[in-house]
Amino acid sequence: MRKNLKVGDSASLSKVFTEEEVMQFANISTDTNPIHLDEKYAADSVFGERIVHGMLTASLFSGLIGVELPGEGAIYLGQSLTFKAPVKIGEQVTASVEITKIREDKPIVTLLTLCVNSGGQVVLEGEAVVKVS
Amino acid sequence: MRKNLKVGDSASLSKVFTEEEVMQFANISTDTNPIHLDEKYAADSVFGERIVHGMLTASLFSGLIGVELPGEGAIYLGQSLTFKAPVKIGEQVTASVEITKIREDKPIVTLLTLCVNSGGQVVLEGEAVVKVS
Repeated sequence: MRKNLKVGDSASLSKVFTEEEVMQFANISTDTNPIHLDEKYAADSVFGERIVHGMLTASLFSGLIGVELPGEGAIYLGQSLTFKAPVKIGEQVTASVEITKIREDKPIVTLLTLCVNSGGQVVLEGEAVVKVS
Repeated sequence: MRKNLKVGDSASLSKVFTEEEVMQFANISTDTNPIHLDEKYAADSVFGERIVHGMLTASLFSGLIGVELPGEGAIYLGQSLTFKAPVKIGEQVTASVEITKIREDKPIVTLLTLCVNSGGQVVLEGEAVVKVS
């Protein structure tokens, strides 16, 4: 395994998604569901206000894996995602990834992936599988 | 189950991710890995040219689920993703979702989610779990 990766290695980042970023993601992804874009609709919904696309929150795992751990040369093989709670626009979330397994036969690592909000609540969890080239 | 959803219902969309969209996604997600952004680096890589972020391709499932099937009122509970092949910038991909299971006890549906390239190769596959409100 290059880069001397080991089980327990971790990385994290915090981010606040802005209204503009949510709009950009809606355009790129084609997910224009009003829960993300329409203030009045969202106010009347179960969430009470507009929320960040779950896949946008999940994109922070791509950021950590593509840039930090394992970073350059990483090839995404898989990702599971369980959306546990909404993320509101303007709310800080902290994403983290931690290596839980390194294959002995191939340069492939498994990472636990988590996002928590500023109150410490897990909003998104899952597992990533990444090839290290 | 509202909306009269049934097993076998499906929706699809085709999209070409542009260089500008990949740049925007890199900024929003913080995934600035050079395989997506740096032409020269990518030319020397195993892929031979810049590729679209896997999570950006996956965001098309969010688009289909949030807008078409089940559409408005959908709440994303989970998504699994297996990245099978790269998607190049400027290459057309077709994403599709198909209901494979409807729970009897709760308004929750499971969908098979697939992306294929213009050559018919599956580039991304997985499963979504969505609450219909």
